[in-house]
Amino acid sequence: MAREISVGKMRGLMRLADPNGRFKMMAIDQRGSLNKALAGVLGREATHDEVARFKQIITRHLGRHASAVLTDPLYGMPRSGRDLPAQAGLLLAYEKTGYVTEEGGKGRNTELIEGWSVAKAVRAGADAIKLLLYYQPEAEPKAVAHQQAICRQVGEECARHDVPFLLEPMSYAVKESGTDTPEFARKKPEVVIETAREFSRPEYGVDVLKMEFPADLKYTHEYCNGVFDPKVRTPVYSLAEVRRICAQLNEAARVPWVILSAAVNIEEFLANVDLACAAGASGFLCGRAIWKEAIPRFTNPPEMERFLDTTGRINFLKCNAAAEAARPMWEHPALAGATVALDTEDWHREYPAP
Amino acid sequence: MAREISVGKMRGLMRLADPNGRFKMMAIDQRGSLNKALAGVLGREATHDEVARFKQIITRHLGRHASAVLTDPLYGMPRSGRDLPAQAGLLLAYEKTGYVTEEGGKGRNTELIEGWSVAKAVRAGADAIKLLLYYQPEAEPKAVAHQQAICRQVGEECARHDVPFLLEPMSYAVKESGTDTPEFARKKPEVVIETAREFSRPEYGVDVLKMEFPADLKYTHEYCNGVFDPKVRTPVYSLAEVRRICAQLNEAARVPWVILSAAVNIEEFLANVDLACAAGASGFLCGRAIWKEAIPRFTNPPEMERFLDTTGRINFLKCNAAAEAARPMWEHPALAGATVALDTEDWHREYPAP
Repeated sequence: MAREISVGKMRGLMRLADPNGRFKMMAIDQRGSLNKALAGVLGREATHDEVARFKQIITRHLGRHASAVLTDPLYGMPRSGRDLPAQAGLLLAYEKTGYVTEEGGKGRNTELIEGWSVAKAVRAGADAIKLLLYYQPEAEPKAVAHQQAICRQVGEECARHDVPFLLEPMSYAVKESGTDTPEFARKKPEVVIETAREFSRPEYGVDVLKMEFPADLKYTHEYCNGVFDPKVRTPVYSLAEVRRICAQLNEAARVPWVILSAAVNIEEFLANVDLACAAGASGFLCGRAIWKEAIPRFTNPPEMERFLDTTGRINFLKCNAAAEAARPMWEHPALAGATVALDTEDWHREYPAP
Repeated sequence: MAREISVGKMRGLMRLADPNGRFKMMAIDQRGSLNKALAGVLGREATHDEVARFKQIITRHLGRHASAVLTDPLYGMPRSGRDLPAQAGLLLAYEKTGYVTEEGGKGRNTELIEGWSVAKAVRAGADAIKLLLYYQPEAEPKAVAHQQAICRQVGEECARHDVPFLLEPMSYAVKESGTDTPEFARKKPEVVIETAREFSRPEYGVDVLKMEFPADLKYTHEYCNGVFDPKVRTPVYSLAEVRRICAQLNEAARVPWVILSAAVNIEEFLANVDLACAAGASGFLCGRAIWKEAIPRFTNPPEMERFLDTTGRINFLKCNAAAEAARPMWEHPALAGATVALDTEDWHREYPAP
């Protein structure tokens, strides 16, 4: 049976996608990792104004290619407000950058930006809320419970404001020595799929899952010999197995899902988008794979802008082209045939205020 | 000195206009007049479902040509939610249809839709709030004060939610026998200009004025001989005088303003748009002049849709072309050089929740 969708969530989801319901979204909400990278370029800590300016330039030059842009309320907004085209949707990040680990533990706890709220985000014009959530089912139960609780809390807050909730679960190594290891490459599918299954449960109120690629292409038989970076690795699966893993992820995700780029380069990300969309993803939400080469050019603005208008633009257009193979969100079982909730004569009375 | 603009109002205004800041907006929020017209076609009162369907069809076929669509939360939403393209802005009407007149008075009092609020409109995805306000400075002081108070109230509510407030003052005959009279044609410029001056005062919090054409072209020397309808009228001014009147209206309006179509036909409206834009208007918000011929075709859906995809579409494209001569809102003195308010490191803390 097709479910009902409330009008606010529906309008918000429409705003994030292209007219056919495919997500072609850009992320420029990085904070910790971006500050570090900019410090490397500047030879000192970047100021608040510099980080805000970096985001503004990226948004001004690449926002026109995006169905929506994800930014943050610390540097991205309000500075980039005029630079983001009106026809692009606006997603705002809600989590504090990084994570907190309890003493002796390995679990990563997410916190929300202090002084910020869904109410403020909506008031500032956000069409959707994004939460990055470190999640590893193998972490200590206390950490797992903390992350589930914060997700539930944000889900409720988004429901109260009738605004879409986009969740970005991020895996990490608990028992393995790091994420670029054969052990973690072997572990990743199970972690990503189990995470999608968990956060598809209606109690979390998630509308779109922003998922990691559920395997590491650099550890496939086909790509292990240095296709994407100079390092040669020991393969742990084949491309055919990765296709099956993507299909399992699609099966586990009971809401529309998009693929994220993490820090992979554009070639690897395009391969990820192809595989994810073939399996049923509804598009992408991509940051650094598109624009990371702008970072070393930040001290030379004309060169940075030239990069964004040429290679950066082409990177984006390639992602958009690949995402034409994505499943429109309106064809996902969660939304197919959905009707607008409360479409009655008394809607204006029954529809609740936040 | 350029003023500051808050980020929510700025994003909302951007959503209403085309990328250059020109308003090309469609109104389908008619209720009383539309119900009456549909009853005339159906030979009986239209049902709620029929009115909602009429608005849905108009929105589906013409929304794609609009920078924004104005509809209402009684019939227009939630029904038309999926039919309005995501890239179009959404305005929602806040006033109850019609007006109330106190016994023995001539003043028209506007009331708000019961059970509705700016909070609900924003939650449902509205980018801006519209209030139609009957206003005649010559009405009895109690009526004038009532209308000013309700405007102030809605202005405050919009400021609380950081959402643009579009005010549509509507003149009416107090001392004259009707609006289609030489007396009212002579009176109209003064009424419209004085009204624009009044509601430009910052205490009302109006962001965009939706103004009547400040004269009646059918009472000009040039157009009085039945250009726009079969009736021949006694002229009360010349086209050159009307141009001066438009310039005075532009002078009085201290916020960006757009021209409305009332019930005039498309030829007269296009002449209105040309004159208004030449004087400094930032576009139009047009309803019946574009789509009113769809009404008699409502009982024949294929014919109604054919009309909308041909003549209706062409009407809209003509208005859009005329509005290319409009002044982009960002060049209006109220917004030129405006900077985003609170663009500081502490914005996420300082920016208030509603």
